[in-house]
Amino acid sequence: MTRLKLGMVGGGQGAFIGGVHRIAARLDGKWDLVAGALSSDPDRAMASAAELGIAADRSYTSFADMAQAEADRPDGVDAVAIVTPNHLHAAPAIAFLDAGIHVICDKPLAATQEQAQELAAAANRSAAHFILTHNYTGYPLIRLARKMVARGDLGAVRVIQAEYAQDWLAEETQSKQADWRTDPARAGAGAIGDIGTHAFNLLSFVSGLRAEALSAELHSFVEGRSVDDNAHILLRLSEGARGMIWASQVAVGNENGLRLRIYGAKGGLEWSQEDPNRMWFTRFGEAPRLLTRGQGEATEGTRIPAGHPEGYLEGFATLYSEAADLISGTSPTPPLPGIEAGLDGMWFITSCLESSGNAGAWVARD
Amino acid sequence: MTRLKLGMVGGGQGAFIGGVHRIAARLDGKWDLVAGALSSDPDRAMASAAELGIAADRSYTSFADMAQAEADRPDGVDAVAIVTPNHLHAAPAIAFLDAGIHVICDKPLAATQEQAQELAAAANRSAAHFILTHNYTGYPLIRLARKMVARGDLGAVRVIQAEYAQDWLAEETQSKQADWRTDPARAGAGAIGDIGTHAFNLLSFVSGLRAEALSAELHSFVEGRSVDDNAHILLRLSEGARGMIWASQVAVGNENGLRLRIYGAKGGLEWSQEDPNRMWFTRFGEAPRLLTRGQGEATEGTRIPAGHPEGYLEGFATLYSEAADLISGTSPTPPLPGIEAGLDGMWFITSCLESSGNAGAWVARD
Amino acid sequence: MTRLKLGMVGGGQGAFIGGVHRIAARLDGKWDLVAGALSSDPDRAMASAAELGIAADRSYTSFADMAQAEADRPDGVDAVAIVTPNHLHAAPAIAFLDAGIHVICDKPLAATQEQAQELAAAANRSAAHFILTHNYTGYPLIRLARKMVARGDLGAVRVIQAEYAQDWLAEETQSKQADWRTDPARAGAGAIGDIGTHAFNLLSFVSGLRAEALSAELHSFVEGRSVDDNAHILLRLSEGARGMIWASQVAVGNENGLRLRIYGAKGGLEWSQEDPNRMWFTRFGEAPRLLTRGQGEATEGTRIPAGHPEGYLEGFATLYSEAADLISGTSPTPPLPGIEAGLDGMWFITSCLESSGNAGAWVARD
Amino acid sequence: MTRLKLGMVGGGQGAFIGGVHRIAARLDGKWDLVAGALSSDPDRAMASAAELGIAADRSYTSFADMAQAEADRPDGVDAVAIVTPNHLHAAPAIAFLDAGIHVICDKPLAATQEQAQELAAAANRSAAHFILTHNYTGYPLIRLARKMVARGDLGAVRVIQAEYAQDWLAEETQSKQADWRTDPARAGAGAIGDIGTHAFNLLSFVSGLRAEALSAELHSFVEGRSVDDNAHILLRLSEGARGMIWASQVAVGNENGLRLRIYGAKGGLEWSQEDPNRMWFTRFGEAPRLLTRGQGEATEGTRIPAGHPEGYLEGFATLYSEAADLISGTSPTPPLPGIEAGLDGMWFITSCLESSGNAGAWVARD
Repeated sequence: MTRLKLGMVGGGQGAFIGGVHRIAARLDGKWDLVAGALSSDPDRAMASAAELGIAADRSYTSFADMAQAEADRPDGVDAVAIVTPNHLHAAPAIAFLDAGIHVICDKPLAATQEQAQELAAAANRSAAHFILTHNYTGYPLIRLARKMVARGDLGAVRVIQAEYAQDWLAEETQSKQADWRTDPARAGAGAIGDIGTHAFNLLSFVSGLRAEALSAELHSFVEGRSVDDNAHILLRLSEGARGMIWASQVAVGNENGLRLRIYGAKGGLEWSQEDPNRMWFTRFGEAPRLLTRGQGEATEGTRIPAGHPEGYLEGFATLYSEAADLISGTSPTPPLPGIEAGLDGMWFITSCLESSGNAGAWVARD
Repeated sequence: MTRLKLGMVGGGQGAFIGGVHRIAARLDGKWDLVAGALSSDPDRAMASAAELGIAADRSYTSFADMAQAEADRPDGVDAVAIVTPNHLHAAPAIAFLDAGIHVICDKPLAATQEQAQELAAAANRSAAHFILTHNYTGYPLIRLARKMVARGDLGAVRVIQAEYAQDWLAEETQSKQADWRTDPARAGAGAIGDIGTHAFNLLSFVSGLRAEALSAELHSFVEGRSVDDNAHILLRLSEGARGMIWASQVAVGNENGLRLRIYGAKGGLEWSQEDPNRMWFTRFGEAPRLLTRGQGEATEGTRIPAGHPEGYLEGFATLYSEAADLISGTSPTPPLPGIEAGLDGMWFITSCLESSGNAGAWVARD
Repeated sequence: MTRLKLGMVGGGQGAFIGGVHRIAARLDGKWDLVAGALSSDPDRAMASAAELGIAADRSYTSFADMAQAEADRPDGVDAVAIVTPNHLHAAPAIAFLDAGIHVICDKPLAATQEQAQELAAAANRSAAHFILTHNYTGYPLIRLARKMVARGDLGAVRVIQAEYAQDWLAEETQSKQADWRTDPARAGAGAIGDIGTHAFNLLSFVSGLRAEALSAELHSFVEGRSVDDNAHILLRLSEGARGMIWASQVAVGNENGLRLRIYGAKGGLEWSQEDPNRMWFTRFGEAPRLLTRGQGEATEGTRIPAGHPEGYLEGFATLYSEAADLISGTSPTPPLPGIEAGLDGMWFITSCLESSGNAGAWVARD
Repeated sequence: MTRLKLGMVGGGQGAFIGGVHRIAARLDGKWDLVAGALSSDPDRAMASAAELGIAADRSYTSFADMAQAEADRPDGVDAVAIVTPNHLHAAPAIAFLDAGIHVICDKPLAATQEQAQELAAAANRSAAHFILTHNYTGYPLIRLARKMVARGDLGAVRVIQAEYAQDWLAEETQSKQADWRTDPARAGAGAIGDIGTHAFNLLSFVSGLRAEALSAELHSFVEGRSVDDNAHILLRLSEGARGMIWASQVAVGNENGLRLRIYGAKGGLEWSQEDPNRMWFTRFGEAPRLLTRGQGEATEGTRIPAGHPEGYLEGFATLYSEAADLISGTSPTPPLPGIEAGLDGMWFITSCLESSGNAGAWVARD
């Protein structure tokens, strides 16, 4: 198999998520990282590129230059990974889409609805693919859960409890990661954008249901913080289902507690991201069963046998692996999140802000 | 120690909670069951009494007769346990309180606000004690949690997640237990009254905070059911804290999933009723600690050493044990739920119904 | 139902296991404690009796006097509970058996083989029942496990891993409980007698297999201790099965970790005493199932529904409840441990000592 | 950083562990796979190489040819990964070591003591490194455990319980993986070699203690199987510690249950491979603490923050990452298992066979 060529925007030295994208791209051996606009700071861009084995002439300081130059090269990148802060997703994504280069973009789609709409328009007019790395959808048991719900193992879905609890922002924090995430201009929102969108996406991905309205109560507990650090959201979903999302970055004792529980008329599923190789399935009236990654049906997206735990990086890598298969034509329709999932997330964020600003009044979807 | 004398209203053959109260009363050896109005059906009342070793002349078919007769006897009961369906709590409780006999009453306080107020008035005018068996407050680790919050181990409380999930009403069910619980006239409400009040009580008991307003979304999933079987409730608590309660009787795979998580500025606590001998405590920035019943400070209300699990019956028995100590004067101020807790619960139920009937509008407390 | 009359030998103020027996006897309302030789110290015997509501004329200072006096009374005790240290089990048990009074005796059977044989002879010549409180056999899921193995749900049993890990003797300890347990004269042995016999009994009770030979490595880690505090034992069981027992009182972090895992050709079961309401069952090639107390078949010996945890006291109480049913003729053949289980335990203890003293050479059973 | 060049012996299409080594080598971006003798079957060798992007002129059908050719090339491989069945480890390892090429070899060292000694001699006479992929040593919490024991957090180690339980060989199985593993000529032994050595290695790696003697009881439960599928082993360790290992491939319900528990005079540690991001640590008399990968000290060998689970592949990759650092001189003394660990494992296997063949007699180490 020929490896595909990957470029990257953002992700220079000191960044977190860029490194994750690079491991994910390497893990299954389908990508080579060959170009980057890793930093707007020229020195840091160059040093970062050198460290990653990117040739000096393919290390750019501007994403616009990079999009044009790579599109012009016969050996230009097949796709670009965009791993900048939220407010800097849309512009580079549009530039690469317009240059006909596939885009793999970190979530959420953008920091504002306006940016999101412009990006959606670019994606629609481009022949290139747009993939949004809602990476938790790559977990094998999440894939199985989606399949089980779709074929009716749970009966009609009634109630979904999703939550994403962390504690790293329980106190005032100063770090590169914390700074932009708590700055309204760069992040767009707080916990709801950073982690709430993951919970919302996962809930939608697994259930196949559409959120029709929401009511939200956002709160900021840490003095001086101008974005939400705790959010309670009620959902009315299609087909009469009800949902609840709790997203918090001040829940002391929680590291990265993304959990999903789905209950239908005939069965229930429970899964936790921190214990991703196991999922509970109960048929009404029967003993709960422990489904494990790698056993029975739970083999989609796995690399190693049951009992050999896979984790966050493997789930992330599955998105890169499937993106490669999609681009190379090996697999035409992987369940990769794209523009629609991104717009859903933007609706979620803006509606939470609207509802919470209006005493929790329900905000309906058009 | 002389044992106290207990009577019982309700709890005849075929009932569930009456048997639980009797075990709870026996367990610590402080009570003798000597009288009862166990059923309004004379034959069943007599057969039930005989089975329980209650003398025939102290088996009544009317709680009113019983209250008067026992008050008149020199060896009359010290206290009466009321274990009837919700709509039949207030009348007997009032009768016994007015007769000067202590009352131990199953929760919730009543089926309607009107009944509740009349009962509260009776309790206020009587010298007798009124104890409401919110039995989950009797668990040793719940007692420890309350103590830890009160003395500031968690810092200022910010977020409380309480939930009570069951699945036994996921389908239409016909049983003595299910029948009255899904009948609005006898139960007053569905899941919010039967189990939601327990979650609300526990949240209040442990946190010491007062609910100032709530927003609720009640739903009934099983066709033909006229009370709620799933409820999502947001809470605004005193001192700026936020809370969320989920109560469901259709969450397939959940047996009796009462869970409480409390997060403050400095620490977090997590506890689950189905695993009641363990509680997680995390100080911000430190490793989570597993506190166990019987170890360290967690000895209030325990009978046996750590590692020898106690459960539901022991927690329930602690209420009976403390009621005996209160009545006999051995312990003047046990933390037993009473009229105030009952009125809180009635506010919770009626406000949930009001909010949910009004598109989730916030209902404030006077 | 008429309650049976219980006497007690040992269990005066400051003792541990006597109080447990009394709660167990009370819990299901089938016994009244009416007589006792609670202590060899007359003052403590009298004070203990008074506290328990035992009439002064039925408080004895000698078990021999008590056996004779109670046998002579028309309202004498139906049974006696013997809750003294190990070396004081045999003599009172023989006295009561010879007096025709049923005996409920704490484990192990005795401190020496000689005592055990004399006790067995007394049990054989008496019409009275002898019940040994290997209380862990009373847990509902242990009852279910035994049933499942017996009917072949696991196929032929191959491997059994039993362990009983505690840490309370990790350092030199001084307490009434620790003192006699670490005194060879009073205890007979250390961890193998105190807890190893429980593990061995449970393994035998559930599997229905007979130990045919064992090899043991006993060790004492705490300086100055003259009995074992850690034991590793290999077992050859009937029908070709293999077993392993680990018993330790120095395993820091373990409170009362009695665990049993049984694997057969077709399935496996796993259970832990500290989480007694749940048991794992896996059929080869299928997802593990979580069986819970109170659900499905797991209702033998339960009092309350699934999700309402029962514990150590309830399991213990089941032995008292069944003993009452056996004596009153209500239930003719409950699976209560008796002399045979006691002799098995004595073989286990003496063979462990013999094997360990002989470099782990296998000791076969006659 | 310049990537190192890797070759591979074994691991052609249909093999399992070869693919794992390749992912491990790719994950951290320090290796490029450029040569291979992937299969002794020429067609399969060529097809496998093509699939992996290995140039045709560097796809060999003989490891001997490969060792010579690669040693002669100016751009020859820096190291070779040997991923053949056990009986084919020694010969290629010796060939590459003699050619001055570093060797990364799957465990166990060899199928026989004779092969092992020859390999050890080759390693001693070569300047090249020999690394044995006891991959479980790469888990971050195992690294932390080793560090904690070494610095005395547990006090003097007393008891170690190690176990490795699987069920995939509970019935007669036919697959490429199962075939050679149950063939004495190719595997050398059964469960003790395949998984028991991992448990033994981990016990030694973490405790820093040396096994001085062992007693073993091996058994084969599946009819017609000529190697052990269940093993119970007692250990006498240096400094008076005692250990127990249970290795089974017929324990129904266990996937890859490698578990380690270490108890010292002052503390205890418990870890399970299937839940590798968490480890229990208890100081005597204190509440158990849950240490998590990525938190506090548990950051050696991690890539992503706490709460983002890493797994088997990441632990394996750490060995490749450290091997690269060792070879490139970046890190001089990583704690990588080598010849000594391999010889320890061979002693373990041969002594288990000897003891079990001699009624469990203790086999001492020279």
